[in-house]
Amino acid sequence: MLKLNKNANTNILIIGLGLLGGSYAKALKKKGYHVEAITLEQSSIDYALEHGIIDYGTTAVDPEVLQRAELIVFALYPKVLLEWIQANQHLLRPGTILTDVTGVKGAIVGKVQEMLREDVEFIAAHPMAGREVYGVENSDDRIFEGANYIVVPTERNTEPAIALCEELGRELGFRSVSRLSPEEHDEMIAYLSQLTHCIAVTLMCCHDKKSLEAYTGDSFRDLTRIAKINDAMWSELFMMNKPALLEQMDIFMDKFQQLRNCLVTENVDEMREMMRISTKRRVWFDK
Amino acid sequence: MLKLNKNANTNILIIGLGLLGGSYAKALKKKGYHVEAITLEQSSIDYALEHGIIDYGTTAVDPEVLQRAELIVFALYPKVLLEWIQANQHLLRPGTILTDVTGVKGAIVGKVQEMLREDVEFIAAHPMAGREVYGVENSDDRIFEGANYIVVPTERNTEPAIALCEELGRELGFRSVSRLSPEEHDEMIAYLSQLTHCIAVTLMCCHDKKSLEAYTGDSFRDLTRIAKINDAMWSELFMMNKPALLEQMDIFMDKFQQLRNCLVTENVDEMREMMRISTKRRVWFDK
Repeated sequence: MLKLNKNANTNILIIGLGLLGGSYAKALKKKGYHVEAITLEQSSIDYALEHGIIDYGTTAVDPEVLQRAELIVFALYPKVLLEWIQANQHLLRPGTILTDVTGVKGAIVGKVQEMLREDVEFIAAHPMAGREVYGVENSDDRIFEGANYIVVPTERNTEPAIALCEELGRELGFRSVSRLSPEEHDEMIAYLSQLTHCIAVTLMCCHDKKSLEAYTGDSFRDLTRIAKINDAMWSELFMMNKPALLEQMDIFMDKFQQLRNCLVTENVDEMREMMRISTKRRVWFDK
Repeated sequence: MLKLNKNANTNILIIGLGLLGGSYAKALKKKGYHVEAITLEQSSIDYALEHGIIDYGTTAVDPEVLQRAELIVFALYPKVLLEWIQANQHLLRPGTILTDVTGVKGAIVGKVQEMLREDVEFIAAHPMAGREVYGVENSDDRIFEGANYIVVPTERNTEPAIALCEELGRELGFRSVSRLSPEEHDEMIAYLSQLTHCIAVTLMCCHDKKSLEAYTGDSFRDLTRIAKINDAMWSELFMMNKPALLEQMDIFMDKFQQLRNCLVTENVDEMREMMRISTKRRVWFDK
């Protein structure tokens, strides 16, 4: 089984050289790994080569590149990932380890593992890091510092592949590496990430008033930073996690209604109790 | 009419030496003004004197201090502000200008101006700056950099007093100084500040699960930074702005429900349209 070894120049292939793929490449190249990339745009390859982010890159699904790869990281939209594997898995070298960065797992991991050849292994991961800009030009390996990395194994995964994936998270520079099942992951992500994006989008949809900027404080800016959102990708992620996201949206609405009722009935004690609970719990999430 | 003049040592009195009062004192002292303070705790006075934040301070409502003050800044809870003026306005020097930092205006400004002596003037202001910590020990005049300052005049105010209050905002270092009526202010603040605090509190009340910290990304942290909240002060602010806040909560819930319906009916086009609107509008609020 493959072990990550920068001295032995472990050959890592990034498929999809956008913000996250580029940030992976940057971090791994700095650590001494041999990093190649397959991506759609030649301009992304050119940029990455000029800036020393990759060792080699191509826009073609080149069988030679795939035969060289020991570890492949898919940094693609969820549906594109499924299509890519369907179309190209016959080109993989036996023993290759595949991993990903996809933000939903239940709708992806099972399907990939189901269709995949027996002699390669897909171990899912979700790096909880990102930015509100796109493309390899904006890639930045510092986004992993202090961030969380989640490995999402199933019963089809082997312990060495899981361990390799965890090692990858540590090599990338994540502060915390942990494991969740696909179901646990999707419930967690519905609350911590998808619900927060729903809220940010909703907040910006409430009013069409540019002049408000002159009165804005940091709280509004903080709550809407992620309202700049890649609508193609996030709508796909939301749809692929529909039941879990709906559940979290409903929990949120219930609690919001509870707070609203405190205001209507002037129940200041209950309102303050909710505030004390939130203050106490928020301390857990300080970095 | 008083003009701010650091060379003539304009005498400014801060009443309530907490985070905001302390930050005002710090900024104004640095600029060369003579700054005094009245506050509840001797320890706050001691700290401020030791750190050169004020020139003089007392825990007593000292008539001599009030007779010296040319400009008074009230940095108190809303109800305490009303009580203080009721109890002590007979001690003010004729011609004194009063201003405040209170986060609601409709429920405050009218009452203050109604009860106030004819020979002093209250001009309301709201500095859109703060932190999630308290007390003069945490005061920091850098919180005004890049922030917005709103002057909230009524028809009872004179143009020179409004101009003085605007000058104060600029002297404190605010990036933008603007004017709103109390009604406009309260509607704006209900949306930009109070609603966002309601959302942050609600988010933290959804789940009691400390272990989520290992999976949290920056989006959740950003949306809940303000969930650490002073429950005594914010419940008072919410209650004092009840109709405007309820209206903004309802607009938010309607839009949130719209997004939820897109998910239920798998109306990806409408979902993406909301995301594109939010992305476009959020650009307005970049600093």
